[in-house]
Amino acid sequence: MATLLRKAARVSLSGSLLSAGGRPGRLYALSYFGSNSRNSSTSSKVKVDLDNSSGIAVVKFQGPPVNSMGMDFLTEMAIGLDKLELDKNCRGIILTSAVPKVFSAGLDIMDMYGKTLEHYELFWRSVQDLWLKLYSSSKIMIAAINGASPAGGCLMALSCDYRILADNPRYKIGLNEAQLGIVAPFWFKDSMVNTVGYRIAEESIQFGVMYSPADALKIGLVDQVVPEDKVLSTAKEKMEKWFDIPDHARQISKSMMRKPTIDRMLANRETDIKNFVGFISKDSIQKSLEMYMAMLKMKKG
Amino acid sequence: MATLLRKAARVSLSGSLLSAGGRPGRLYALSYFGSNSRNSSTSSKVKVDLDNSSGIAVVKFQGPPVNSMGMDFLTEMAIGLDKLELDKNCRGIILTSAVPKVFSAGLDIMDMYGKTLEHYELFWRSVQDLWLKLYSSSKIMIAAINGASPAGGCLMALSCDYRILADNPRYKIGLNEAQLGIVAPFWFKDSMVNTVGYRIAEESIQFGVMYSPADALKIGLVDQVVPEDKVLSTAKEKMEKWFDIPDHARQISKSMMRKPTIDRMLANRETDIKNFVGFISKDSIQKSLEMYMAMLKMKKG
Amino acid sequence: MATLLRKAARVSLSGSLLSAGGRPGRLYALSYFGSNSRNSSTSSKVKVDLDNSSGIAVVKFQGPPVNSMGMDFLTEMAIGLDKLELDKNCRGIILTSAVPKVFSAGLDIMDMYGKTLEHYELFWRSVQDLWLKLYSSSKIMIAAINGASPAGGCLMALSCDYRILADNPRYKIGLNEAQLGIVAPFWFKDSMVNTVGYRIAEESIQFGVMYSPADALKIGLVDQVVPEDKVLSTAKEKMEKWFDIPDHARQISKSMMRKPTIDRMLANRETDIKNFVGFISKDSIQKSLEMYMAMLKMKKG
Repeated sequence: MATLLRKAARVSLSGSLLSAGGRPGRLYALSYFGSNSRNSSTSSKVKVDLDNSSGIAVVKFQGPPVNSMGMDFLTEMAIGLDKLELDKNCRGIILTSAVPKVFSAGLDIMDMYGKTLEHYELFWRSVQDLWLKLYSSSKIMIAAINGASPAGGCLMALSCDYRILADNPRYKIGLNEAQLGIVAPFWFKDSMVNTVGYRIAEESIQFGVMYSPADALKIGLVDQVVPEDKVLSTAKEKMEKWFDIPDHARQISKSMMRKPTIDRMLANRETDIKNFVGFISKDSIQKSLEMYMAMLKMKKG
Repeated sequence: MATLLRKAARVSLSGSLLSAGGRPGRLYALSYFGSNSRNSSTSSKVKVDLDNSSGIAVVKFQGPPVNSMGMDFLTEMAIGLDKLELDKNCRGIILTSAVPKVFSAGLDIMDMYGKTLEHYELFWRSVQDLWLKLYSSSKIMIAAINGASPAGGCLMALSCDYRILADNPRYKIGLNEAQLGIVAPFWFKDSMVNTVGYRIAEESIQFGVMYSPADALKIGLVDQVVPEDKVLSTAKEKMEKWFDIPDHARQISKSMMRKPTIDRMLANRETDIKNFVGFISKDSIQKSLEMYMAMLKMKKG
Repeated sequence: MATLLRKAARVSLSGSLLSAGGRPGRLYALSYFGSNSRNSSTSSKVKVDLDNSSGIAVVKFQGPPVNSMGMDFLTEMAIGLDKLELDKNCRGIILTSAVPKVFSAGLDIMDMYGKTLEHYELFWRSVQDLWLKLYSSSKIMIAAINGASPAGGCLMALSCDYRILADNPRYKIGLNEAQLGIVAPFWFKDSMVNTVGYRIAEESIQFGVMYSPADALKIGLVDQVVPEDKVLSTAKEKMEKWFDIPDHARQISKSMMRKPTIDRMLANRETDIKNFVGFISKDSIQKSLEMYMAMLKMKKG
């Protein structure tokens, strides 16, 4: 993490709603990733491989250095997931990373700084869309988490039906927004409560706790911890086993469980966007972001 | 299980709403019980013994081979539970089985095949009634689970205040409807969520997981696992201990906890019946059931 | 406990709504605390120490023998908490006891016996107020539980953001109202469900379970168990660590989690008061309380 930080040029913001009380100085200390590598700018951020014989699609995040969830990532994910959803050959999807040491560092700060109100609105709607597509997918979704997974990265994992984390103490996972002085939106919170229960979610979100693999397993934030080189194969084995379940019954059951959470998001979607846009476009917040990025650059120096 | 399967003549369907995607072939492989014994047809399916000195009633399922929940079982349970509810000498009820190796295999498929719409409606209303009586009972309810307990069998256990499971790895318990290509109704789901929490219920219901005693204990699906010959005595000891609690305070507390779940069921009861009747009377579903039963007969040969 | 009981003169009732089925005889056996010490009557029941350098306020209950939650305690707590809430130097509050062996024994029975309807209403509103102030505090609240903590004592602990319990098997904690023949109000129940989940709360409240430190830790009713002489220092260390989190983000996150529970209480507040006043003023209940107190005096002899 430390070495990654020193190379930071591009900024990934592990969270969504910046609070007025955010402290740029500490934000820096707690931010996980940055980048001086731009060679992926023209390349695809997401690679989708569907194995027609097995019915398993592997969706690989390949936006070094930290698989930031920017507009390009969000757009590619939306297109990829829509295609898979309609593809009858696909019965299950595995989310994983092609970037060493990181699953995804979360939302891209570049989409929250110095842009138009229209951009902020579009960006936030796209983040909501990604969650909706992941959380309501009719496919079996497994997160093969082979790297650190803060904030938005954690959210993608939480949206799956099963989470397998690589057994590396550096690969922490959690909704750490509060640590950064920002607040996880209500649907991040709902996803967390649904996974680890109210009490752990309360502590987790209030204090922005990042969990080691051992702790994540203990609280049920992930379902399995396996050696790093077994993450993907374990995900595939689990998937094959679950393919024994008739799709239709499984899909209806999944929908019955998740519909209330999805409905709550949809009912509050426009308000959530309005809140985000109003917040992020504040002078004080933009100033905080500016200072934050300046510090990252200085550190990189 | 395997030997029981081979003897299958009567069909017990561990679930309720058959999905269009149900796969009869696999249904067979996953069905737990059948029967070639009809000598219990004229006898009672449920035996109720109330010990006036202790205040404990033991309700024994005695419908071999698998304590299927058919109309006769449901009717006898309704009458027995109503009587006990009104009997001031009764302070607690223990549910257990007189049939070796099985607590109950769940709903009886014979009540879902080749019958009139009126019969389906009556049957489903009776299943709802049983759950309502169990879940809202003012008595202390303990499940002494001395055998396998899939689907409807698991539901009866979930409706109790405490669950003691015999320590036999063959005595699995769970809402395995999805494995059979069918879907657990919302109040089965609610009972499961209330017992093991949202996350485990989601995995459990989506993939129709059947749990070994060790796993059931770990996730809180049962409260105790004891040697098979200690199940009933342990239930009685627990009951005696809880008789120390004043009934009135306990009853109000229980009602405060369970009322929202009961109210949700009552508010959606007629829709639930309509859904079931519409679904089960479909030609495709009846055809699936027919094939399913034919296979069972062939296997039995 | 036994020795404390024998000294009982003042009565502390661990609960709120007495049920008609309450059994005074057993109430006695299960009551935890009493008192023959009146030397604290003119002194303050609560001591508030705010360390401006650290930002930590320690709120010490000092109403021997059992820190009963009577009108004086409730009033002092309300004033103290209001002051701290407005004090920008205060970022966190630790609740603890200056009385050996007991955190708080809960509501004071003297405020429920032989008083006017107006008094009952005022008393109950004050109990509600205390919970509202604790549960919705913008500060980090930690319970340093250095003694037994039944009923109302447990409620105060449940209202905090973190619970540290002294490792003494005599220091049991729980909502034991049902054991006393009374019923925990819905917001006690909500606080319990939010902490330990639905299933454990159901058993806990229905049977009035008191948990040892080991069991309380296992079910998540407390977050840490430490040697008695480390309770306060551990609370302070935890607090210091959490001061790293920007207040604003933490406060919004906490509010997002707790608002639904607080809103439910506020929406039902007047009904809850009406229920309490109607119940407690019944002749049968007042008679039960009279017998209860008479027994305590006899035992004390």
